[in-house]
Amino acid sequence: MFIEPKVLKGFRDFLPPAEMIRRSLTEKIEGSFRSFGFVPIDTPALEYAEILLGKGGGETEKQIYRFKDNGDRDVALRFDLTVPFARFTALHQDELSFPFKRYHIGKVWRGENTQRGRYREFTQCDFDIIGSDSAAADFEIILMIRATLLSLGTDVSIRVNHRGLFNRFLSHIGLSEKSAEVLRVVDKIAKVGIDETRQTLAGLAGDSNAQKLLAFIGADGTDKKETFEQTLNRITELSGGPSPESERLALLRRFMLDAAGTDAPDDDSFILDPSITRGLDYYTGVVFETFLRELPGIGSICSGGRYDNLAGLYSKSHGSKAAISGVGSSIGLDRMIAALESLGKIPAAVGFCSAAIACVREEHSGMYQALADRFRRAGIPCEVFPDEAGSPDSKQLVKQYILAEKKGLRWLVIPGGDPLHDPLTLRDLGARQNREGLSVEETMKIMDSITHQGAGM
Amino acid sequence: MFIEPKVLKGFRDFLPPAEMIRRSLTEKIEGSFRSFGFVPIDTPALEYAEILLGKGGGETEKQIYRFKDNGDRDVALRFDLTVPFARFTALHQDELSFPFKRYHIGKVWRGENTQRGRYREFTQCDFDIIGSDSAAADFEIILMIRATLLSLGTDVSIRVNHRGLFNRFLSHIGLSEKSAEVLRVVDKIAKVGIDETRQTLAGLAGDSNAQKLLAFIGADGTDKKETFEQTLNRITELSGGPSPESERLALLRRFMLDAAGTDAPDDDSFILDPSITRGLDYYTGVVFETFLRELPGIGSICSGGRYDNLAGLYSKSHGSKAAISGVGSSIGLDRMIAALESLGKIPAAVGFCSAAIACVREEHSGMYQALADRFRRAGIPCEVFPDEAGSPDSKQLVKQYILAEKKGLRWLVIPGGDPLHDPLTLRDLGARQNREGLSVEETMKIMDSITHQGAGM
Repeated sequence: MFIEPKVLKGFRDFLPPAEMIRRSLTEKIEGSFRSFGFVPIDTPALEYAEILLGKGGGETEKQIYRFKDNGDRDVALRFDLTVPFARFTALHQDELSFPFKRYHIGKVWRGENTQRGRYREFTQCDFDIIGSDSAAADFEIILMIRATLLSLGTDVSIRVNHRGLFNRFLSHIGLSEKSAEVLRVVDKIAKVGIDETRQTLAGLAGDSNAQKLLAFIGADGTDKKETFEQTLNRITELSGGPSPESERLALLRRFMLDAAGTDAPDDDSFILDPSITRGLDYYTGVVFETFLRELPGIGSICSGGRYDNLAGLYSKSHGSKAAISGVGSSIGLDRMIAALESLGKIPAAVGFCSAAIACVREEHSGMYQALADRFRRAGIPCEVFPDEAGSPDSKQLVKQYILAEKKGLRWLVIPGGDPLHDPLTLRDLGARQNREGLSVEETMKIMDSITHQGAGM
Repeated sequence: MFIEPKVLKGFRDFLPPAEMIRRSLTEKIEGSFRSFGFVPIDTPALEYAEILLGKGGGETEKQIYRFKDNGDRDVALRFDLTVPFARFTALHQDELSFPFKRYHIGKVWRGENTQRGRYREFTQCDFDIIGSDSAAADFEIILMIRATLLSLGTDVSIRVNHRGLFNRFLSHIGLSEKSAEVLRVVDKIAKVGIDETRQTLAGLAGDSNAQKLLAFIGADGTDKKETFEQTLNRITELSGGPSPESERLALLRRFMLDAAGTDAPDDDSFILDPSITRGLDYYTGVVFETFLRELPGIGSICSGGRYDNLAGLYSKSHGSKAAISGVGSSIGLDRMIAALESLGKIPAAVGFCSAAIACVREEHSGMYQALADRFRRAGIPCEVFPDEAGSPDSKQLVKQYILAEKKGLRWLVIPGGDPLHDPLTLRDLGARQNREGLSVEETMKIMDSITHQGAGM
């Protein structure tokens, strides 16, 4: 019997070099979230389809992995971490302390068209603050995006806007009723271009309104080099004067300046961009998109915003308690890795372990482990080769040198005939040189100094 | 519209207190694997059903989540990490360096009967060395089990046996042909008891052979208090004298003594137990089970053994290259946590963050973040409360004290009117006492000393 070994289209195996990079990045992202006091949750991969589809319809329904389980339940694999979080919040709200700051890193599944380079299994890193309406919460999410991406070695430009202020403007020019359509059209402007957007808007609201809309979002052809404050003043006026929404944007700008201190961000790090709307009906307040300073062309790598009713669909009561508001965002790990790769910011190899003990005589394997244990206790990961290979007498363990190099190790420790008492030989696989006659302490000292000096990530 | 928020039977949400414990334990387990030089891989949750079912039949087929995807492919959720690893090895063997030491921590799904307290989604932590036949590899897996469980604060007793030696004995008494059945019956002895096992064996092989089998496995009623060496001598003789299999067990014992050094294990930490057979046909060499010294009753929490043909089912060629041998084991995270809980070895709360900055005036939120940034840069995770609550004038921020206590924090930093220049007040939420007039440095010093002193996990 033979079964062809293959993976499903859009799914991937991760071999150690790729998986070590993924884990290193995830650990950095998680470390950043934790440093802000965010706490982790987890939810099932599989849920009732009814819960995941919610109001249903559209792309989601076509892409979701949905089936009947052995108990004939209508179930599906989660396609994002937001819907499960809404269900989670409704179910557990009495057990949570608000404001609640949580992160959730996990896989999601979508039957996407793989021709567009999309994967059907990918990892999302979500973070939200719920149960607070304050500008401070909006600001913290934006600040955490910046801190997290800086920790990955890349600087960002965050573009914000306020859906409520946009709606106020629409109301001011008499387009309130077409708010949802207009926001969706404007959201696609970066993809479809100004001309097509102008046409679509004209069809929707007339030529004159189309022109006003393009002027509001700063896409009317005049190349505005505005500061945050200038843009804010302009759109505040266009939307009928100061409002709680314009006030919130002003507050966010002030927080950013206050927080920066000596590490003041330049004008491009935090931009007010009235064309940012985020297509989803879901958002009601501040919205934002994040671009890599060195690679803006790949689009937003971390978007999000404020919503005012996270769990309503799953809550029986419709009082103030049920309408949980919040603000949140998500980093797509796979897209982030692709971006860092194009920028050359991913080291060729990330190793969790850089040392091995050669197997000179297999019967000494117990003592080799005792030796490795001394390294490990000193915080130096160390593997032990299990097989004799090469000629021990001449200390030319060529096959083991080659294996160690293939594995990307830096050091091979070659024990003597009495492994725990004889001096050690240390092979530097980078320099291809051996140093003989070393004690365990001397060996650790050399490994420690050079390994840490050259450690990437 | 209202949708009842609920999770599927056998599936679980993890709220922050539980998830922080899960992550802390996973990080310890992973840290131990890495210290031995094992590297991570990952594979898809969803695979072709044909690949996961392999030769098919039995419990697996009934429990697997299997369905047709949108492209009408016959797919299924992985039910363990071993079968995907076999497929992975066949597919990528030219890209791997052997011996290959990998770990894989991930979720698996089985439609188990939940009445037995089983979950349908659970996490496994697998680790294997493949491409080495040596006793040193067998030993390393056993040593890593011990080191990993010690790092979780619990001591273990590891029971080993050799399937080949058992088969040699069966051959010696003329029962070769019934090997598979006998091994399966013996595997269940702890569950069904000696009397029923004797009857089943008698039915299978006659009264006299049943008696011999029970004598071999040490279950003939004579209470043998044997050392490892005594048991080895006895079963070596019963199986017709010294053999490569008895020699391997002797080598493992020697390695264990050599590796222990000053940290010598007592007789109960490493036991030769001829009744350990592991029911699966899969194993061909050394097999082992791991029991918690303080809670042996819950059964083996980490079992495994040596196999001689991992990827054969997925390999076209049947040469020596295709027949990849190896040795491996798996820790069930959920069962391990349940065991640690019964032993009281899980702290009531694991916190990743123990400090917050109170929100005295929301308009100062930018400066509060600048203050928090100083803590974070010093390695002290710190959250910032986003909402004013309580009376700032009297510094009686009672609501914020309560929130901080609910969150399990130890420290609440209360900034002054000029947050970056005025002295700070530090509330010790454990002692319910405030210390006033502190500089940032003094605040960090106090938090750091007491937090680290009392840190669990």
